[in-house]
Amino acid sequence: MHSQLTMGCFTRNISLSLLLLVIMVHAHCQPPRGPIIISPQVNQDKTVVFRYLAPRAVEVKLSGQFLKEPVIMEKDSLGIWSVAVGPIKPDIYPYSFNVDGVTVMDPANVSFFPNERFKASLVDVPGDTPLIHAMRDVPHGTITYEYYPSVEQSTGSLVVYTPPGYNKNTSTKYPVFYLISGTTDTEETFFKVGRTNLILDNLIAEGKARPMIVVMPYGNPMARIAEQQGKPKPSDLMTRDGEDAMLRAKLFETDLVNHVIPYIEKSYRAISNRDSRAIGGFSRGGGQTLRTAFGNLDKFSWICCYSASLSTSEMETKFKQIGGNAQNTNKQLNLLWVSVGNDDFLYKSTMEFMDYLKSKDVKYKSLITPGGHTWMNVKTYLSETAQLLFQ
Amino acid sequence: MHSQLTMGCFTRNISLSLLLLVIMVHAHCQPPRGPIIISPQVNQDKTVVFRYLAPRAVEVKLSGQFLKEPVIMEKDSLGIWSVAVGPIKPDIYPYSFNVDGVTVMDPANVSFFPNERFKASLVDVPGDTPLIHAMRDVPHGTITYEYYPSVEQSTGSLVVYTPPGYNKNTSTKYPVFYLISGTTDTEETFFKVGRTNLILDNLIAEGKARPMIVVMPYGNPMARIAEQQGKPKPSDLMTRDGEDAMLRAKLFETDLVNHVIPYIEKSYRAISNRDSRAIGGFSRGGGQTLRTAFGNLDKFSWICCYSASLSTSEMETKFKQIGGNAQNTNKQLNLLWVSVGNDDFLYKSTMEFMDYLKSKDVKYKSLITPGGHTWMNVKTYLSETAQLLFQ
Repeated sequence: MHSQLTMGCFTRNISLSLLLLVIMVHAHCQPPRGPIIISPQVNQDKTVVFRYLAPRAVEVKLSGQFLKEPVIMEKDSLGIWSVAVGPIKPDIYPYSFNVDGVTVMDPANVSFFPNERFKASLVDVPGDTPLIHAMRDVPHGTITYEYYPSVEQSTGSLVVYTPPGYNKNTSTKYPVFYLISGTTDTEETFFKVGRTNLILDNLIAEGKARPMIVVMPYGNPMARIAEQQGKPKPSDLMTRDGEDAMLRAKLFETDLVNHVIPYIEKSYRAISNRDSRAIGGFSRGGGQTLRTAFGNLDKFSWICCYSASLSTSEMETKFKQIGGNAQNTNKQLNLLWVSVGNDDFLYKSTMEFMDYLKSKDVKYKSLITPGGHTWMNVKTYLSETAQLLFQ
Repeated sequence: MHSQLTMGCFTRNISLSLLLLVIMVHAHCQPPRGPIIISPQVNQDKTVVFRYLAPRAVEVKLSGQFLKEPVIMEKDSLGIWSVAVGPIKPDIYPYSFNVDGVTVMDPANVSFFPNERFKASLVDVPGDTPLIHAMRDVPHGTITYEYYPSVEQSTGSLVVYTPPGYNKNTSTKYPVFYLISGTTDTEETFFKVGRTNLILDNLIAEGKARPMIVVMPYGNPMARIAEQQGKPKPSDLMTRDGEDAMLRAKLFETDLVNHVIPYIEKSYRAISNRDSRAIGGFSRGGGQTLRTAFGNLDKFSWICCYSASLSTSEMETKFKQIGGNAQNTNKQLNLLWVSVGNDDFLYKSTMEFMDYLKSKDVKYKSLITPGGHTWMNVKTYLSETAQLLFQ
């Protein structure tokens, strides 16, 4: 933005190394920028150096999902706080700095976590052989941002993955996977954090997944409607268990079934039958997945629930026919998938959900992984389930 | 991400108002979140309240392109700093907080400025009648993220706008506008900050612009190549005027002409002749526009330069034929557009460029606006030029 201004008035290069480039700018340049920080610096040996400029801060800590607890950073004479951690197990991790009690993302890093409530940056530690979410030299699909006419005359937004070759074989039709992110995530999270496009590109290139369209909606149309009407956004946290939360869940279902699906099937070369529609989601999106699927079995036959579940009481009241007529359920469903991390705060409730399904003889596939309620796990679940869908 | 975790363990609602929702979380919840901050809060009267949580900070200031200079914020008993400003002239503005000398974006705001060097958030102050970049109830085009085979075996990324109806009238072909952002901007900046898609949607709906494809490349393939090869990124600031900078500029031109254009014309229904290709850009992207266009007049006949220019010496050495044979230049060019703000730090050099063109009888159109080197101005230039292209 103002970079040429700054460039025009920098005075001299004080120090230059491969690790840290420091350029001083005139104090009268607006805005003064100070040293250029390189962060994160991912080394060959999978150690990572994090840096943050804060000359006047008293304490700066690094938090990251590769750490058990935050680590304190050290300040140098220029006011740059840094810490080296690892080696870190190859994956993509959210991290942030805590500056005198305030959580901030890494200003030196362009890769960030789209979310409405917190700001985290992303560090990508590559594997010795490229991981399933890595950019490989394979044919790439595309990601498209779409507006569509949504509930209550609002305009909704979608992120859509189309597989490699979609624009070439213009007579081929594809099955569709509707994939929903978690509370306070946005419709961009499965793209930017989940790397849905690269995971699908790689699996399709290996012949392990069928080419498919993946549709990533925004999970909270109630908030969007309020925003577009210029009203205060209903808080995600205030309404989780109340009547509002049920209204919000219903609104999502109505939006997906009555607005998103018809829009996609009109705008894309989608196969429009239940055997070619899958639905999946993480966390709140996993709950929305189960409710929307169980309430609309005429629409979906593939269900993927990542780190979420429904309570026995909800299953017994709202979706009694699922367990009540397991034979029919099993006949109707091509896949019911439930996965969770053994360190996930939803581990216990998810195990109870599986116990319920077992007790009713409802068939399902499950995967219990190490770790918690994280997007590292979501990527694993996504790449496992993508290989089962539509096969 | 961890939102359900936090929800699962919040204790009690301390205070609730339409302006500020405060929820306390248990100290043992990871990560603790503290109060929920509403920021920015855009009021009907176009005043805006900005808020930032930093209980231990000594001084917090607000910087924004709607302000002449930063304003000091005030802290309340919860440690929330706030300030009300305005009324603000309707537009979209970058802003940030300065916390004890450190610039940070607004963690409460999901709308941010994609950039490799600084982090700014965006505040949208709507007009009484919707502005040209506002979401209106008109047919919408789509934004697509593409990977393509780029220079030196690297994989490049593009953001592509296709106009409303692109996917319906599958025999229609469209002209293409290649649109390049500035130094340290990314290929997302013209989408997320410039609102290229909404500006085009609105102009097309009003019959003021021809439906066109807009291709937004990343401006610095040299940095991307280094990144993909696991090498340190060459600094944008270090190489501006040196040999490296010229190499970088040449690499961009090669990438655009030999890789981006062929990829687009293979993948999209693009009309592939010079009368249906436009090129434009802001700041460094404006310089790249002029160099790429003047060096490839067989490829482009529409040129839009926003807040940038070439020096007389560069015109006289590298592009002597432009002024040397003005009659031919004028015959070849459908549009040569030069615009700048009268408060832009590049105002003087841009006026010199216009003087040079005048002295050589090279025809051009110009627009001098109030204001500086800002994306508010870029949106104005984009919406003016989009109405001229391909007409």
